[in-house]
Amino acid sequence: MKAFINGQFVRKDAEIIRLEDRGLTFADGLFEVLRTAEGKALFFSEHIERMKNSAAELEIDFPYGFEEVRGFAEELISLNGLDEGELYIELTRGADINREHRFPPKGTPSTFFMLAIPLRKIDRNNWTQGAKVVTFDDLRHRMCIHKTLNLLPNVLAKNHAYKNGGYEALMYRDSPSGRYVTEGGSSSYFFVIDGKVVTPEIDNILPGITRSKVIDIAEKAGYEVTERRVLLDEVLIADEVMIASTVSKVMPVRQVDNRIFKAPGEITTRLMELYEDVFKREING
Amino acid sequence: MKAFINGQFVRKDAEIIRLEDRGLTFADGLFEVLRTAEGKALFFSEHIERMKNSAAELEIDFPYGFEEVRGFAEELISLNGLDEGELYIELTRGADINREHRFPPKGTPSTFFMLAIPLRKIDRNNWTQGAKVVTFDDLRHRMCIHKTLNLLPNVLAKNHAYKNGGYEALMYRDSPSGRYVTEGGSSSYFFVIDGKVVTPEIDNILPGITRSKVIDIAEKAGYEVTERRVLLDEVLIADEVMIASTVSKVMPVRQVDNRIFKAPGEITTRLMELYEDVFKREING
Repeated sequence: MKAFINGQFVRKDAEIIRLEDRGLTFADGLFEVLRTAEGKALFFSEHIERMKNSAAELEIDFPYGFEEVRGFAEELISLNGLDEGELYIELTRGADINREHRFPPKGTPSTFFMLAIPLRKIDRNNWTQGAKVVTFDDLRHRMCIHKTLNLLPNVLAKNHAYKNGGYEALMYRDSPSGRYVTEGGSSSYFFVIDGKVVTPEIDNILPGITRSKVIDIAEKAGYEVTERRVLLDEVLIADEVMIASTVSKVMPVRQVDNRIFKAPGEITTRLMELYEDVFKREING
Repeated sequence: MKAFINGQFVRKDAEIIRLEDRGLTFADGLFEVLRTAEGKALFFSEHIERMKNSAAELEIDFPYGFEEVRGFAEELISLNGLDEGELYIELTRGADINREHRFPPKGTPSTFFMLAIPLRKIDRNNWTQGAKVVTFDDLRHRMCIHKTLNLLPNVLAKNHAYKNGGYEALMYRDSPSGRYVTEGGSSSYFFVIDGKVVTPEIDNILPGITRSKVIDIAEKAGYEVTERRVLLDEVLIADEVMIASTVSKVMPVRQVDNRIFKAPGEITTRLMELYEDVFKREING
């Protein structure tokens, strides 16, 4: 297996990153995960645009043009003989000989690397019968609108879910008006409440690529979609619960902690079908 | 310059970390910064104990005994011919061939490395006339009791301070009872209010090694020391403001944003002297 780093292809397990890289010492960077299929990285423009926008805001140099990245990505996917897989992209503020918080001198090159790896193994029953998710306190920072490397709280949330037989976490925050849900360790949530599709508003959560596709297809299918604060109490009496992410696509949820849901529900089933259509169009488009 | 990693000494700028290291991809790790002097890493036990305790809580394997780490650290300091310097220690959950949030299989070795570098250049006027600090929104996560790698909010805070001519940030959080201060990007704060020494309580802030030394010497010197929530409004009318950290030691603050303070104040001067005594005893002890 090969990886791409700063213009060259290396072994995926190469020891190649400097101890002084700010991705390693300060989590000073961004990442993206894309699905690959038939040699392509899907929804490429959306992912790269999100990374470029966050990089600009955080003043991290994004070193390539869109088509350059696409070329390197497709070459890497091809080198690894990957069909159904995942493309991981990371961008850091680069290496600095000093370990100081302030940004390094202008002109310090950023670090850009990509891994192209087989699709992680996911039990197919998660889609046919629904996944179990486990609630967890959202311990994250307040920069969740960016897809940053500051992921230890996500790691703890997802690990807690796995340890309790779950597939994903459902994170929540407390507020004077009650406990409300935010997102998973690496996915967005949708709920069916009173026949309507409801999803947490972008209030310190990631504007997910799959999330926005699901909103789009749900609206086009004639469902009313609302982005708003969603209380955990509402979730526990929702008619349907689903996850949306690059890797999970649209996945029904059959269990939140000890509460059981019908899975897949009627609207979830419809959104799963519609998302598959979008996904296939993207592969063939 | 050399660095230490996983049992071997390598060039400090060696490309040695795998792309798959969870320190790089998930900020899944911890760090410490120690002062070095006369070939020793100061307050060694306190720093290593804090790292070991956090590692145990986060289920990251700490691969060495105390004395083993001390031996490697002193060898590295010696190899680099370092007198007054900084020892940076990082521990990550190691490399995993899959990029998945959940903890890797038991037995996956953690990554442990150390840098021993010259003391960063700090304008001496900061100690004689006081430093300028700049307030910044505390964007951090809720795991600040651990010294984790999730430092992007600290990076932004300190970079904001530097850009505005400051030495350090003074971070704050909002609460129904008002805006209160937490800590710097890499230091603790002390204030003199009504002749008493006041410092923010350990409420999602780091239990700093230097912070605890300062509390100790202030109490021994007969000052009343209170750890409590400190509102920003109180800070702005405090009699004295000071920073405490491994690298800054005790440093007076002459300016918080546009507000000017007497620096160094009387109690600050006394605590600076007392801390120097502790520091010298540690070198010679």
